[in-house]
Amino acid sequence: MSKAISGLAFEAWAALHRQRIEAALARFIPDAELSSGRMFESMRYSVLGGGKRLRALLAYASAEAVGASSDVADHAAASVEMIHAYSLIHDDMPCMDNDAMRRGKPTNHVVFGDATAMLAGDALQPLAFRVLLDANASASGIVAASRLLADASGARGMAGGQAIDLANVGKPMTQAALEEMHAMKTGAMFEAAVVLPALMIEADQERVDSLTQFAANIGLAFQVVDDVLDATASSETLGKTAGKDAADDKPTFVSLMGIDAAQAYARALTRQAIAAAEVMGGNNARLIDVAFAMAERKS
Amino acid sequence: MSKAISGLAFEAWAALHRQRIEAALARFIPDAELSSGRMFESMRYSVLGGGKRLRALLAYASAEAVGASSDVADHAAASVEMIHAYSLIHDDMPCMDNDAMRRGKPTNHVVFGDATAMLAGDALQPLAFRVLLDANASASGIVAASRLLADASGARGMAGGQAIDLANVGKPMTQAALEEMHAMKTGAMFEAAVVLPALMIEADQERVDSLTQFAANIGLAFQVVDDVLDATASSETLGKTAGKDAADDKPTFVSLMGIDAAQAYARALTRQAIAAAEVMGGNNARLIDVAFAMAERKS
Repeated sequence: MSKAISGLAFEAWAALHRQRIEAALARFIPDAELSSGRMFESMRYSVLGGGKRLRALLAYASAEAVGASSDVADHAAASVEMIHAYSLIHDDMPCMDNDAMRRGKPTNHVVFGDATAMLAGDALQPLAFRVLLDANASASGIVAASRLLADASGARGMAGGQAIDLANVGKPMTQAALEEMHAMKTGAMFEAAVVLPALMIEADQERVDSLTQFAANIGLAFQVVDDVLDATASSETLGKTAGKDAADDKPTFVSLMGIDAAQAYARALTRQAIAAAEVMGGNNARLIDVAFAMAERKS
Repeated sequence: MSKAISGLAFEAWAALHRQRIEAALARFIPDAELSSGRMFESMRYSVLGGGKRLRALLAYASAEAVGASSDVADHAAASVEMIHAYSLIHDDMPCMDNDAMRRGKPTNHVVFGDATAMLAGDALQPLAFRVLLDANASASGIVAASRLLADASGARGMAGGQAIDLANVGKPMTQAALEEMHAMKTGAMFEAAVVLPALMIEADQERVDSLTQFAANIGLAFQVVDDVLDATASSETLGKTAGKDAADDKPTFVSLMGIDAAQAYARALTRQAIAAAEVMGGNNARLIDVAFAMAERKS
């Protein structure tokens, strides 16, 4: 059926665009030089060479949907991946999650030390803004996009979601509170990935609204799937310790709803995301592919 | 003499503008709310209520010099103070300088814990960009200013200077290397404070160049004076431990040049800064006042 064919074509597209974001990031991050070389090395260590690059794929797919240039797509995708990379460096540090391994290699602070890891994360934030600001787009489009990046990564977005997570360790949470936290902690940067290209080319407000709608649904679906995988997949498949949420007594969609209802919820959210993409129209096939891939991932 | 009179008037101006930056910052930082309230509290703790506000005063003086609006001045000053506040929070943390006191009160991580302190610093960076992006100025002026803020705070500016500092603990440094480090670590953000208002109103390049020149000289003078004070003033006057550089065996302008030559160098740099302000013309009296105040400070 067309699903399988589109799935195959999607994997080829995704592989191509994973190469593309890698090249863009390598171009935007300076080589090691001067005595601050160790910090540049630390930045490159966490930004390059890895991950599913879901945020970059969303930015590229969204750029295709709205007809943004490849330059705009590269700058949007790279800025979002840089914010994501900094957040992982800081999250892994001893004062946060104290994780020693990520994606099968030692975490940044284990390799470079806590001080350099903190500085590398600190330096990736302004670099993400610089990359966005340097896109070949109208000044007003860039300002609108930069505002969204600031909000998505800041106190009302990712950093604020982290703070809520921190404040709720070991406490029961309602589903509404859990969704609010995830909308900030991971959803906001998914939204940035999806919406930045449209803002940069000053797409009309209806399209921006549809994309925001799409992003909110896939962002939440992503987290529900994460919780289901943590409860059902093996550590080997996941590439990280499975069953960690239950062991940490963390509130999750599985602990609140059970596995079957959580799986059904993820499917419903994915359907809503796809409906939003369809309302928007345009060249939306890749966006829909990414939504399916995020819902059906096994790790 | 006119110097004393200008000095008196300057103190009144400075007091007024310290109140003004306080009000602007309070307006731009959200009140504590939701479960991320502790992080907002932590942000407010370090941003509000303190310090000499040299960076804000420079932004206000520079806005006066180029005829920028009070809105532009507030947004420029607040964004630079927010970056400065985040850098102090992270610098004081155990993995960096491990300082327990700053400006006579416990440091942020001592009050809020390391995780919240790190997050508060992380959230202040995008807020600084958001504040700059929200100024009532042309989109192209805002893009130019935001680029400078990104560079000044990032790997080639403040964060990079910190990394060089870190890499050189206990090592001898030449005066050229020491100047390069300080130009990045503190000079770049002084430059941002001075130059942002001019970029925001798209002042002509000659004025921007003169302001950059002014900023480079006062930035370096600031650091030379810092080293002289550390070697000559009492801890009581400084409000922090005096003689710390020598005790830490840190390379300073005093250790490289001796006290007399360092004092003469600070005076020469201040004269060069003032010459640059005079070349620029405009309403430059306050800029010159701030340069004098920075050179003559006793703490």
